Amino acid sequence: MNTFGTILRLTTFGESHGKALGGVIDGCPAGLKLDMEYIQSETDRRRPGQSKIASQRKERDKVELLSGHVNMITTGAPLAFIILNEDIRSQDYSEIEQIFRPSHADYTFYQKYQIRDAKGGGRASARETVSRVVAGAIAKLLLKQALPQVEIHAWVAGIGELYDPLLPNDFTLHGMFCQAVHSPNPTFAKEAYHYIDTLRKEGDSIGGIIRCVMRGIPPGLGEPVFGKLHTMLGAAMLSIPAVKGFEYGSGFEGTRMKGSAHNDIFFRGENGEIRTQTNYSGGIQGGISNGESIYFRVAFKPTATILRPQYSIDIAGSPAVLSPKGRHDPCVVPRAVPIVEAMAAWVIADAFLLQRTSRM
Amino acid sequence: MNTFGTILRLTTFGESHGKALGGVIDGCPAGLKLDMEYIQSETDRRRPGQSKIASQRKERDKVELLSGHVNMITTGAPLAFIILNEDIRSQDYSEIEQIFRPSHADYTFYQKYQIRDAKGGGRASARETVSRVVAGAIAKLLLKQALPQVEIHAWVAGIGELYDPLLPNDFTLHGMFCQAVHSPNPTFAKEAYHYIDTLRKEGDSIGGIIRCVMRGIPPGLGEPVFGKLHTMLGAAMLSIPAVKGFEYGSGFEGTRMKGSAHNDIFFRGENGEIRTQTNYSGGIQGGISNGESIYFRVAFKPTATILRPQYSIDIAGSPAVLSPKGRHDPCVVPRAVPIVEAMAAWVIADAFLLQRTSRM
Amino acid sequence: MNTFGTILRLTTFGESHGKALGGVIDGCPAGLKLDMEYIQSETDRRRPGQSKIASQRKERDKVELLSGHVNMITTGAPLAFIILNEDIRSQDYSEIEQIFRPSHADYTFYQKYQIRDAKGGGRASARETVSRVVAGAIAKLLLKQALPQVEIHAWVAGIGELYDPLLPNDFTLHGMFCQAVHSPNPTFAKEAYHYIDTLRKEGDSIGGIIRCVMRGIPPGLGEPVFGKLHTMLGAAMLSIPAVKGFEYGSGFEGTRMKGSAHNDIFFRGENGEIRTQTNYSGGIQGGISNGESIYFRVAFKPTATILRPQYSIDIAGSPAVLSPKGRHDPCVVPRAVPIVEAMAAWVIADAFLLQRTSRM
Amino acid sequence: MNTFGTILRLTTFGESHGKALGGVIDGCPAGLKLDMEYIQSETDRRRPGQSKIASQRKERDKVELLSGHVNMITTGAPLAFIILNEDIRSQDYSEIEQIFRPSHADYTFYQKYQIRDAKGGGRASARETVSRVVAGAIAKLLLKQALPQVEIHAWVAGIGELYDPLLPNDFTLHGMFCQAVHSPNPTFAKEAYHYIDTLRKEGDSIGGIIRCVMRGIPPGLGEPVFGKLHTMLGAAMLSIPAVKGFEYGSGFEGTRMKGSAHNDIFFRGENGEIRTQTNYSGGIQGGISNGESIYFRVAFKPTATILRPQYSIDIAGSPAVLSPKGRHDPCVVPRAVPIVEAMAAWVIADAFLLQRTSRM
Repeated sequence: MNTFGTILRLTTFGESHGKALGGVIDGCPAGLKLDMEYIQSETDRRRPGQSKIASQRKERDKVELLSGHVNMITTGAPLAFIILNEDIRSQDYSEIEQIFRPSHADYTFYQKYQIRDAKGGGRASARETVSRVVAGAIAKLLLKQALPQVEIHAWVAGIGELYDPLLPNDFTLHGMFCQAVHSPNPTFAKEAYHYIDTLRKEGDSIGGIIRCVMRGIPPGLGEPVFGKLHTMLGAAMLSIPAVKGFEYGSGFEGTRMKGSAHNDIFFRGENGEIRTQTNYSGGIQGGISNGESIYFRVAFKPTATILRPQYSIDIAGSPAVLSPKGRHDPCVVPRAVPIVEAMAAWVIADAFLLQRTSRM
Repeated sequence: MNTFGTILRLTTFGESHGKALGGVIDGCPAGLKLDMEYIQSETDRRRPGQSKIASQRKERDKVELLSGHVNMITTGAPLAFIILNEDIRSQDYSEIEQIFRPSHADYTFYQKYQIRDAKGGGRASARETVSRVVAGAIAKLLLKQALPQVEIHAWVAGIGELYDPLLPNDFTLHGMFCQAVHSPNPTFAKEAYHYIDTLRKEGDSIGGIIRCVMRGIPPGLGEPVFGKLHTMLGAAMLSIPAVKGFEYGSGFEGTRMKGSAHNDIFFRGENGEIRTQTNYSGGIQGGISNGESIYFRVAFKPTATILRPQYSIDIAGSPAVLSPKGRHDPCVVPRAVPIVEAMAAWVIADAFLLQRTSRM
Repeated sequence: MNTFGTILRLTTFGESHGKALGGVIDGCPAGLKLDMEYIQSETDRRRPGQSKIASQRKERDKVELLSGHVNMITTGAPLAFIILNEDIRSQDYSEIEQIFRPSHADYTFYQKYQIRDAKGGGRASARETVSRVVAGAIAKLLLKQALPQVEIHAWVAGIGELYDPLLPNDFTLHGMFCQAVHSPNPTFAKEAYHYIDTLRKEGDSIGGIIRCVMRGIPPGLGEPVFGKLHTMLGAAMLSIPAVKGFEYGSGFEGTRMKGSAHNDIFFRGENGEIRTQTNYSGGIQGGISNGESIYFRVAFKPTATILRPQYSIDIAGSPAVLSPKGRHDPCVVPRAVPIVEAMAAWVIADAFLLQRTSRM
Repeated sequence: MNTFGTILRLTTFGESHGKALGGVIDGCPAGLKLDMEYIQSETDRRRPGQSKIASQRKERDKVELLSGHVNMITTGAPLAFIILNEDIRSQDYSEIEQIFRPSHADYTFYQKYQIRDAKGGGRASARETVSRVVAGAIAKLLLKQALPQVEIHAWVAGIGELYDPLLPNDFTLHGMFCQAVHSPNPTFAKEAYHYIDTLRKEGDSIGGIIRCVMRGIPPGLGEPVFGKLHTMLGAAMLSIPAVKGFEYGSGFEGTRMKGSAHNDIFFRGENGEIRTQTNYSGGIQGGISNGESIYFRVAFKPTATILRPQYSIDIAGSPAVLSPKGRHDPCVVPRAVPIVEAMAAWVIADAFLLQRTSRM
């Protein structure tokens, strides 16, 4: 249950205020060239403390690789990695040990296990996702080396009521990219930044939407029935903390369309390749990639831990007032962008390896 | 890849125009009382040919149980079942063998496997889902016997632009339920019925939305990280043919809310039980059920196979015009309601069994 | 738990006196040419009633394929098959419903599940293995088409104290092969046949040993650590009813050897290929095939159900005398030969597919 | 493929001369009391350098737990642990990088992956098993707390031609236990010690046999068909480096017995419990435990790496003479005793958790 993937399998571990977080990657093919600088740079993209509107926890998030390679070439053996926790202030969580935070995992973990690691949220902290980003960077390297035409880009498309209308086809890395908001749209980024900062000062939080586009995915990836490519992408996204929804291609909007308008008509492209005129399918038909761009949207709820008093109940079931401390993101969406990319890359790399077994 | 579940595992098989469809249920606990009448009645809910707005294929969909029980009590051995295909008109598919239907799985299956069962859509036909409904009926029996307070209800909440505003809390079985549309709202059902019927006559199709509510789910179900309860529900739904999106609780709407408004405040109910005042969480916090109602929405695209000429390409890559025959649903949404319930029941039953291993 | 394999996965179902036995094969690559005549002929090799020394149950064991192919070419979809039970005499088992047979699964199934399908032994009957032989025939076809140099041969090497000294290297299909005993050695076969027949008349039973050799297996199959090739072969064999032991290569005898004698020295063969001078390794080193012949031995205990009175206890825990009826093999070993081959072929085919994912 | 178990899952990583070895335990129930002193003491039982007849590598094998507990009570989150490698002399392996050791995994790893971590044997080193012993210690703690009557004991029953006739029923911890040989029989231990020491001086090696008995296992553990309890035990043992065979209960000897002699007759014990008069079944019938002692034997080949010149071929395929250095066990059998116990404990603990899902 802490493992994700079929051929390429990631098992993660670690708590917010434990000794370390990390993971084991099994099923990684031999002969992959690792690049620690790249892996670290991807990991840095989700690191806290990089802007005023993110958690002020100071973590270097230094990735240490423990196994699985000879001189940075993978050997087929499992790749284990750890990230030590450095900036822990568990005293901030003494109140939370006694009082359940509304809409957080405190109460449900306690109901499930009858024991709970309250410090920093324990295993339920979004800090868990650092392991996913490390693994995703390795999946991206695998794709770069095996399928160099593949591109995976995610960005913040909405914060509260603010919305960036940029379409997946129009996303480009040429131009300004606001790292604090993880947005390619300077106007939107500025507005969103100020909005989040205002909420931060008010001790409140806000949700938002991430868009992701994947280009250059070869046709044929994904399994019919339970292992559809969008099923795996959806499961990957819906496993990220705070995610409330997933749609791909035309998504919920597509439910209002007639088939005659929604169908993507095939034609032959300039180089004889088979293309579709529209792409309401979002690059996936019958659960299998068709070679067009794959794009999807992911909904994130507002951060549950807000820095203002809230009514709740304590561990004994008595009414209580909670005034949480700790360092929290007033909006998790910007920092979730590299997580979305990481999980998407993992799904594609896994489907790519599995596809090697599908024909005689 | 044709298997779903962790403890309770369903493996399905069969093609639209093959000899039979069916499945094997492994991990079903011994001592479950089967009820073939109930299983058949659930299966009948998705049967084609029951109204003018559904596919006119005539199938009895008679479920035959091959193994796994003694006098209708399960023994712990795998339960295998088959449903024979009876009303096959493969000649209707001779054109489709040569020309790829837009937005269907024809092209992608061919890219993946270099061979394709074109008759009736083969494995990519929604007829595959009959096995899910049979299995779901058994999961529902398991829940009835182990957790009798559990209720699972799905209904059509939207067809094209038509929308039924009924909230999950307000769903009740007391009242009229339109079987053709699978709607508890007679006004909406009537409008939707006529709209689908009009599109049917035009040879067109339409998408829609299904809502589902699950009441009485005990707290503690679901696994942190990759096996969150909503991750499994989302994967279950996103594996249903034609599904384009999934959201639970506040979903995409919740992305616009502030944390101070979105947080569900705990309180003690009349009988001392812990409840929340609102339920934006949709009954799941940190991926684990909290005892409140679980509710979610599922987006279905319009049927790809429409009965009007469309441009496409043929198997040789040449331009072609497609005029499909065959019997198709102008809107899959009504018939998908029992499928949504079946998959949801499976996820809950599986999580319930797995939860037995989570504490010493 | 009724599924075997990693990429190529077999899920079996069915009871001895149920409607049917069968299985679902998932992960079978598209483009495999099926051959029903071959599949049936392999299945016939384990069929009961073919000699005096086997169970007299009369089953045609007709294999019916339900899905997964177009004109006998696999499509990548699951292959489901069933074998109907035809010659059932459940009345023979009325005593066994009340009294536990010594050394059979009656008591343990009851302890595990609190319910038991006593008729014909239910799921614990060796009749379960018919599904394995059907699946194994398909695995053999896969190997024939993908790795035509592969040969898999098993034979009876011992019955009670009788022992056939034939070494794996010396096995050949050129010569007499006694089908009743499944032995390539006419002298041994004759002795063994008469011995088993004598025991049959005495209402007693006997155990024995099967040897298997696999030639032409390419180097590189098998996974280090938990998925070693001999681990998978051992698990496959130890899952066959009545198996008590497994050894490969030098096996238990090799424990007495010094490393200086046991080590297989590498040299280059006539065509430049790398070979070993001896083959104590049994074709597997570090859990991975090295290109030499793989050979192993499997120990079978005497059939538990013997046709003479035995003391036991009944379901209420009281002392009882059991005088079983039913049709049983006085020695399961001859009929287990095709089962051993089937499971071995499955392991090799699965490892072959998995190996495709092991390098960039 | 580096993961073992169904509910309780161990994923291991690490190479002989890498930074660290370790593992992640997933599916461990919450509420287990950990005891680091016990875990370390179990790990110390397989530590090298503790006697003249073992490898002289000096490793403290200090176990560091990274996650999964609060104050040494498990929380349901994955338990990750590492053991740093401290005494590495990779220069000893420079020859092995060029020349394949006979009967080792050098050649097959290279064939499989086209790359190989030669230092210390990399992932193919028996040093990998330290992670299993740590995990096994945690499985033993789980059993101690959930099933306190369970006992698991393994010992060396044979070294080369030397044989200890001690029967499983007669094993007791009361008396001398020779730690160097891992034998409860002082006479055998003394002979075996001197024999191994002589071979060590000669630069040679020897194989041997380990026996294991498990008492107090409740009836009902194990799954019919592919997950039989002895199948899982066999797979566990056959995954240990150097293992060539596994037999349980009457094993290969039982193949010579008649059913009338081999059947274990049931009777009621003094306290009304159901017992068997003999135990040729080895405590397992139909793949499910029956409450009697489970016992089995495991065959280990002689260490492949011997310290005398041997002919071989080099990585270019040319003939070469190998004169390995490095620190190796002249006989792996004594140090394998805690590994056998660890893997056996893991199988039982996993089956125990899975059994919770087998009845309504």
